[in-house]
Amino acid sequence: MFNERIYNFSAGPSMLPLPVLEKAASEITNYNGSGMSVMEMSHRSRAYQEVFDGTKALFREVLSVPDTHEILFMQGGATGQFAAVAMNLIGSTGKADYAVTGNFSGLAAREARKYGQVHLAADTSERKHTAIPRQDELELSPDAAYLHYCANNTIYGTEWDYTPKAGCPVVADMSSNILSKPVDIAGHGLIYAGVQKNMAPAGMAAVIIDKSLAGHELPCTPTILSYKTMIDKDSMYNTPPTFNIYLLGLTLQWVKERGGVRGMEELRELRSSILYDFLDNSKLFSGCADRSARSKMNVTFRTADPDLDASFVKEAAARGLVSLGGHRIVGGMRASIYNAMPVEGVRRLVEFMAKFESEHKI
Amino acid sequence: MFNERIYNFSAGPSMLPLPVLEKAASEITNYNGSGMSVMEMSHRSRAYQEVFDGTKALFREVLSVPDTHEILFMQGGATGQFAAVAMNLIGSTGKADYAVTGNFSGLAAREARKYGQVHLAADTSERKHTAIPRQDELELSPDAAYLHYCANNTIYGTEWDYTPKAGCPVVADMSSNILSKPVDIAGHGLIYAGVQKNMAPAGMAAVIIDKSLAGHELPCTPTILSYKTMIDKDSMYNTPPTFNIYLLGLTLQWVKERGGVRGMEELRELRSSILYDFLDNSKLFSGCADRSARSKMNVTFRTADPDLDASFVKEAAARGLVSLGGHRIVGGMRASIYNAMPVEGVRRLVEFMAKFESEHKI
Repeated sequence: MFNERIYNFSAGPSMLPLPVLEKAASEITNYNGSGMSVMEMSHRSRAYQEVFDGTKALFREVLSVPDTHEILFMQGGATGQFAAVAMNLIGSTGKADYAVTGNFSGLAAREARKYGQVHLAADTSERKHTAIPRQDELELSPDAAYLHYCANNTIYGTEWDYTPKAGCPVVADMSSNILSKPVDIAGHGLIYAGVQKNMAPAGMAAVIIDKSLAGHELPCTPTILSYKTMIDKDSMYNTPPTFNIYLLGLTLQWVKERGGVRGMEELRELRSSILYDFLDNSKLFSGCADRSARSKMNVTFRTADPDLDASFVKEAAARGLVSLGGHRIVGGMRASIYNAMPVEGVRRLVEFMAKFESEHKI
Repeated sequence: MFNERIYNFSAGPSMLPLPVLEKAASEITNYNGSGMSVMEMSHRSRAYQEVFDGTKALFREVLSVPDTHEILFMQGGATGQFAAVAMNLIGSTGKADYAVTGNFSGLAAREARKYGQVHLAADTSERKHTAIPRQDELELSPDAAYLHYCANNTIYGTEWDYTPKAGCPVVADMSSNILSKPVDIAGHGLIYAGVQKNMAPAGMAAVIIDKSLAGHELPCTPTILSYKTMIDKDSMYNTPPTFNIYLLGLTLQWVKERGGVRGMEELRELRSSILYDFLDNSKLFSGCADRSARSKMNVTFRTADPDLDASFVKEAAARGLVSLGGHRIVGGMRASIYNAMPVEGVRRLVEFMAKFESEHKI
């Protein structure tokens, strides 16, 4: 039982900024003099339209989304987008390239196989997904409708530090690093992100799509996954996840007030360097990912002993440093340090790692 | 600007019980000593699993769902289910029966045409959807995979007062009347409901499915819409809309404490009878739906003059009786009186209708 807020290193859903939660609580029964909660508003009401438009405008501003690209808020999370991307885009050639660098990019490729031919432009599974392929290592098809990659691999703790180039539109799953640094939007035909890691409560994906790519979906595409319909109806073909959109707006305002994505980038450099510097000097703990591929959002590490890993995770939790267990696929530890994780949380973690190391000399 | 809570007659999203909102606010930064918000919890954590299991158990208890049926929480709302129902169920014969009694059942039928042959077992559009077909008026196909109907038509203010029978599984969209009365679950192969009218914030559908119906989806079905996958993974194949599920649990607790669905049924009888009794004695206002088809959730009415309707809606809103405008398809007025609408709200509405009528003698 914790009376105070703790440091939550969960990979997602994960921490939200405390001021965002407090603001949401303060107006939960009466938003802005409307006499009702945002949750209770008709999505067709003027009051809610202002919430929606405000969130979308902030999203465009904070991520510098050009006019060529539309912003959509869709249900079904990133997993829904695994299907939507293929159903909407693969039809032009019937084939797509997938760079598989972790679990979720593998699932995305598997889902796409329902709708066309999938070619693996990269597959780091032989290296246990500790690496990210270089541009010259990508095996691109001449006739791919698009190239799909996952910009940050939460489970393995790796992150692309460049936007891959291809002769076709590039599609990115940025679920776990969106809003953490400036993004080359123009270099992408489509970007999507489940909101539950760095933006808002679970239950929605944000999509940034080059409008020229929409309108060619397969006939079997459910309407809720049609980019054309969602563009035409401004994400309101059906009732959108209204509260999630509102919370996203509060988060974006919080990001903006802290220097926008450049401010967030400085913080992620600081947080991750504190952790990696410690790991590089530790005799007990070691980082799991190749140095060149290290994620600045999800830091994976371990000791040489799984039992010791389990003890570490348990003892850390008792100190209010929770959800440090690695994903069940890989074990070990993982510290997810998204925008809302205070630098102080990372310092506390490193202090505890040092203490734990001193108590468990090898 | 309202300093107090107002009466919100929106068709959805719509009012939530005030104690539910207050409870959510009180624990929004620290749920039950976890040191975090429910929104921030990993969906794989023990703390969240308890929230999830508690909601599901309450749902089963309150609606008396038998063990033959599984309860699912899925993203995409009822519109997502329009596709999911057809993709998962139509394959057995390639054909389905749809009773079209309003806008949303029409959209459901249109979506199903992507996946198979659709036969209209009923179509009340010639009667402007003011009626509900009797059992003996349904034209059922001998080879339908299922019969789909919409149990309550929000736009037209009509409601089925019986469960239709067919030689195939019966599928119901109960988005706008679920939890308002006991439901014949065993008489249905599948029931779905977007949660944003009577249960929780928008962004989710609750599904009650006879488990024997799952496992036959079309190959093109997106994984997030596969009932088989969602049953196998207990609605957690991917990250579920965690906060919506938590809010649903709070609402179910509120319903349970007020006599469950029988308590809710007494209240809906009371609320709707106050309004219909007034309408039946009014010289200015008249109900839109046939008496035999009247909805106890959405009461549609009008004067003979669209300008007067507009004045009524505007003046009512100024008194804190908001969102009384009818759907843009039909105009007039609509009072949506779901579980969370206090009886006092309906009394205030009728008082104002009487006042308005006295000021606008015909």
